[in-house]
Amino acid sequence: MERIQVALIGAGRMGQVHGPNAAAHPGLRLRYVIDPRDEAAAALAARLGAEAATLDAALADPEIRGVLVCSSTDQHLAHALAAVAAGKAVFCEKPIDLDLDKARAAAPQFAGARFLLGFNRRFDPHFQALKQRLDEGAIGALESLHIINHDPAAPPPGFVPTSGGLFKDFTIHDLDLARWLLGEEPVKLYATASCLVDPEIGRQGDVDTARTVLATASGRLCVISNTRRSGCGYDQRIEAFGARGMLCAGNPGLDTVQMLDASGVHAAPIHPGFASRYALAYARQLGHFADVLHGRADAAVGYADGLAALALAEACADSLRRGHAVAL
Amino acid sequence: MERIQVALIGAGRMGQVHGPNAAAHPGLRLRYVIDPRDEAAAALAARLGAEAATLDAALADPEIRGVLVCSSTDQHLAHALAAVAAGKAVFCEKPIDLDLDKARAAAPQFAGARFLLGFNRRFDPHFQALKQRLDEGAIGALESLHIINHDPAAPPPGFVPTSGGLFKDFTIHDLDLARWLLGEEPVKLYATASCLVDPEIGRQGDVDTARTVLATASGRLCVISNTRRSGCGYDQRIEAFGARGMLCAGNPGLDTVQMLDASGVHAAPIHPGFASRYALAYARQLGHFADVLHGRADAAVGYADGLAALALAEACADSLRRGHAVAL
Amino acid sequence: MERIQVALIGAGRMGQVHGPNAAAHPGLRLRYVIDPRDEAAAALAARLGAEAATLDAALADPEIRGVLVCSSTDQHLAHALAAVAAGKAVFCEKPIDLDLDKARAAAPQFAGARFLLGFNRRFDPHFQALKQRLDEGAIGALESLHIINHDPAAPPPGFVPTSGGLFKDFTIHDLDLARWLLGEEPVKLYATASCLVDPEIGRQGDVDTARTVLATASGRLCVISNTRRSGCGYDQRIEAFGARGMLCAGNPGLDTVQMLDASGVHAAPIHPGFASRYALAYARQLGHFADVLHGRADAAVGYADGLAALALAEACADSLRRGHAVAL
Amino acid sequence: MERIQVALIGAGRMGQVHGPNAAAHPGLRLRYVIDPRDEAAAALAARLGAEAATLDAALADPEIRGVLVCSSTDQHLAHALAAVAAGKAVFCEKPIDLDLDKARAAAPQFAGARFLLGFNRRFDPHFQALKQRLDEGAIGALESLHIINHDPAAPPPGFVPTSGGLFKDFTIHDLDLARWLLGEEPVKLYATASCLVDPEIGRQGDVDTARTVLATASGRLCVISNTRRSGCGYDQRIEAFGARGMLCAGNPGLDTVQMLDASGVHAAPIHPGFASRYALAYARQLGHFADVLHGRADAAVGYADGLAALALAEACADSLRRGHAVAL
Repeated sequence: MERIQVALIGAGRMGQVHGPNAAAHPGLRLRYVIDPRDEAAAALAARLGAEAATLDAALADPEIRGVLVCSSTDQHLAHALAAVAAGKAVFCEKPIDLDLDKARAAAPQFAGARFLLGFNRRFDPHFQALKQRLDEGAIGALESLHIINHDPAAPPPGFVPTSGGLFKDFTIHDLDLARWLLGEEPVKLYATASCLVDPEIGRQGDVDTARTVLATASGRLCVISNTRRSGCGYDQRIEAFGARGMLCAGNPGLDTVQMLDASGVHAAPIHPGFASRYALAYARQLGHFADVLHGRADAAVGYADGLAALALAEACADSLRRGHAVAL
Repeated sequence: MERIQVALIGAGRMGQVHGPNAAAHPGLRLRYVIDPRDEAAAALAARLGAEAATLDAALADPEIRGVLVCSSTDQHLAHALAAVAAGKAVFCEKPIDLDLDKARAAAPQFAGARFLLGFNRRFDPHFQALKQRLDEGAIGALESLHIINHDPAAPPPGFVPTSGGLFKDFTIHDLDLARWLLGEEPVKLYATASCLVDPEIGRQGDVDTARTVLATASGRLCVISNTRRSGCGYDQRIEAFGARGMLCAGNPGLDTVQMLDASGVHAAPIHPGFASRYALAYARQLGHFADVLHGRADAAVGYADGLAALALAEACADSLRRGHAVAL
Repeated sequence: MERIQVALIGAGRMGQVHGPNAAAHPGLRLRYVIDPRDEAAAALAARLGAEAATLDAALADPEIRGVLVCSSTDQHLAHALAAVAAGKAVFCEKPIDLDLDKARAAAPQFAGARFLLGFNRRFDPHFQALKQRLDEGAIGALESLHIINHDPAAPPPGFVPTSGGLFKDFTIHDLDLARWLLGEEPVKLYATASCLVDPEIGRQGDVDTARTVLATASGRLCVISNTRRSGCGYDQRIEAFGARGMLCAGNPGLDTVQMLDASGVHAAPIHPGFASRYALAYARQLGHFADVLHGRADAAVGYADGLAALALAEACADSLRRGHAVAL
Repeated sequence: MERIQVALIGAGRMGQVHGPNAAAHPGLRLRYVIDPRDEAAAALAARLGAEAATLDAALADPEIRGVLVCSSTDQHLAHALAAVAAGKAVFCEKPIDLDLDKARAAAPQFAGARFLLGFNRRFDPHFQALKQRLDEGAIGALESLHIINHDPAAPPPGFVPTSGGLFKDFTIHDLDLARWLLGEEPVKLYATASCLVDPEIGRQGDVDTARTVLATASGRLCVISNTRRSGCGYDQRIEAFGARGMLCAGNPGLDTVQMLDASGVHAAPIHPGFASRYALAYARQLGHFADVLHGRADAAVGYADGLAALALAEACADSLRRGHAVAL
């Protein structure tokens, strides 16, 4: 298999997730790592058998056919636009941008581009298995949905101001899952939330515990449950209720060992965070991007999906602010 | 142990649940069965070693110290009032009444009465185990709650008009559980619902699929999930999320047998309906009423609890009608 | 339904299990309780609405049509014989006797008698569900079997000398299950055992930890695992392996609550002992005896089954003594 | 991290497992692939960025510091000896050889060598978690053990004659696990077996369904359960019973999705075979070999472990042949 050359923009947290997957993929060659912090770029490049480069140089190299945008959120859109303008296929971490108007305004420039947005959960094998059985009709017509997305522990101080807030930063994953699974667009939404985990989050104007209810035109209902701190690990589940039964994708445990003693039955914790829980999803997502580059697939999650999820996230914030349901 | 004599009003569905438990309890003697349908009263009385009687006769008998009100919903309040007026302790099936104003107006007449309302789920051993661990602080302070209450199959035609609607008939159980577990009264509520199970239910003005979100003054959140038809049995679960972890009360299976073959791992269905799922809860509830009669306990669920749940059910209907959240 | 009168011999541990089930059964009337300890007989009789009596009086009463033999093990055979001689149907606790020769010699006197031997595990709903699926061919032809029977805690001092030893007292249940499930008689057997739980058991000449392997003529294999002290409750499981898959009957938990915290996933203990674990099996076993008395069923476990299990238990002890496999 | 160069002998089934793990390991560089079938060597080398070579050339290259012996079983010993003689560290697939005498005779030549034998199950994360909790004393002193090793489907015709038979080919894994977990050497062993899966296996003089019971000097007992065809996938479990409870390592499912419908609760199959089930174990095993090469660890499984397991496998065959227990 030909190894198509790609460049990685961003040597931070997500670059360190996607870079190794690109380097290990038999159909890709990670050629450049770009980061304004020279040392970070050089270190990650060395680790992955790539070379540090400037953005301009990487985009000017005709051998580079794909770009992984893993820069800071406020740079996603600019970097994606530059890569698209240079004729590259783009994998872009979510969200496209925190500003819906800005993201909408840029949409025309992505027309026709090969663009994959990083909603990794669509590539999780457990969630994909649920989706497949749903599509096969295992439980008949879908009627309602529960999406549980609970982070293990509160984010560090200073995270909130640049995060876009709970809905745009965190719930957005679930809003995308809801769109993916419901098979219809939501037409109405109600979000309510509290600050129970850390009062500092509240002081910075955000919430940490939320419930959102979506309804589609045909009456399908979806509840999204979010908290910033579960106390028991990274709780990631989906329950789908249909006319003939239900499907649940549960939390994989860290191992299968059970210990029985006089006090009960004890099993391993669930995954401690996104890195291990979604390791396989990230690898499969990158594999899908390789398929896009090799012309074997169209991008499963496009720019329009990013806009739609962002619009729903804004609507959640709006519902919370106004204290009641909003029509979409 | 002395066997205190009790009378049962109603030989229908719920009378056939509570009557046998009263007859089998070592501290009770089921003496009379009262039902306007003479044959039904006689048949149940014969089966349980009791005798058919009129309401007046039973209430006039000084040996009778407790009355089980299992008549039709529209008779609950009148029968409970009559029994209280006769100085009897009363166990009354839920709901007290479908009319909140009427129920409120009657409240003073229950002051000082020994009155146990039939919210059976508070007596379920699984839910009690969850409550106990919550109260012991196993997961720290409670922050949010999911209550799943899904009926196995749609009710028969003709049920809807006299039922009071989904919220007063069905969700009311969950509203009581929410009050029991949250440790605070809800101050705000949003309900949304659809008719997805049976269009006939919609034609009769009711809904069959609903999600309700409650919030308390301190910001605790509770989601109630209801459907009239799960397709997979009687799905009855509670998930409680706290500062240090979570507690889940799941669905007990019909047996523990697992079958593994080439297609996967297969286990028995969950319970098919309320009668088997809550058999032990009903027996323990009746045992609690026996304790009340013997002076060993105060009624754990009183008239005020019935009023509070009914008020919340009305608020759900109000929220649905108005399309947005309501303050309580 | 007619209530057929029965007498209970033995007000001890097993009498207190079977007596209440007989008293509560709608097709039986527990009339007499017989025990050489007058007070014990009187107390149990009073509690169950029966009367204390002598064995002779009970057997002479033509109204008594069934007898429950729950006396001490060394009296089982004599009491069963007396009851059969008096024309009564007999439910007899296991084992028939600890002396195989004596039990064999008595066999002709049970010819034609209605005799149900108390191998309660055949009436456990979990094991029955496994048996039913096996018989339905869910896993194809049975090839091998694991039976796990682990007691929660070592027996009290003084128990061993009259118990008959681990194999006749404890493994005998599993030997009966093996015969029930294998569908063929074992033709070869190997037992090995240790004293690991309590050295006092070893001093009294018994063992507390054992593994037994049975083979049938067609080559089906069965392993029986026994220990006198599991440390985690009453571990009672069956695994059946067939040509197309496997069936496992697991340990029901005390409740369905799971607690997740940072240390893992925690569930309730398994049952602490036989009384609660097999409560339903005992009730169903008594129900089956009622069916026998009412002429609705033939006894599912007969005298020959008792002899066969006892012979296998002797063969286990023989194999252990000789240190190698024995042909049957 | 320096990438130490290694050579792979054997481009067949196991070479295709270990080769990619060596190629992907950050501390190793897979330099040569050796196989008498030139095309196979070339194809695997090309896929893994290595080059095809002769054994002599590879062993003569001073840059090669480690050798992976994945040739056919009858070549394991010769290849391992050649590599050791050339001063290389050796990873050798199990078994060392099918001939115990031959393997014993060669033992002195491995004195002082860095030699890791491929008992992959010791590196499985589930079994390692069980071992760790056992070593931590979670269930007190170990008393007995069940090892379940059931292959998914019967081997192809022609496999049996060169396999060494069930015990040396298959049970040998479990005998090694038993030694690893028991903490004592077995002193007595009994094996019984049947041919139930495929009569052709019997015609070729082998068995396909077996149970083996081991006992140690202190009385610890271990049962090994084997079949060549489970009908439900690759059933790989361990149960350890101690003074204060039990530990079970179960079968990880292919995903966490549960489907509930009217017929029951349905989950994904267990793993279909060794490749996916032990993928992580193989990677960790290779990682351990890298640690040995880097001087960070001594080989966890040595030549003596191979001899010991092989001796036990021979004893199993001996016990089966003689029909009774054998002392070791």
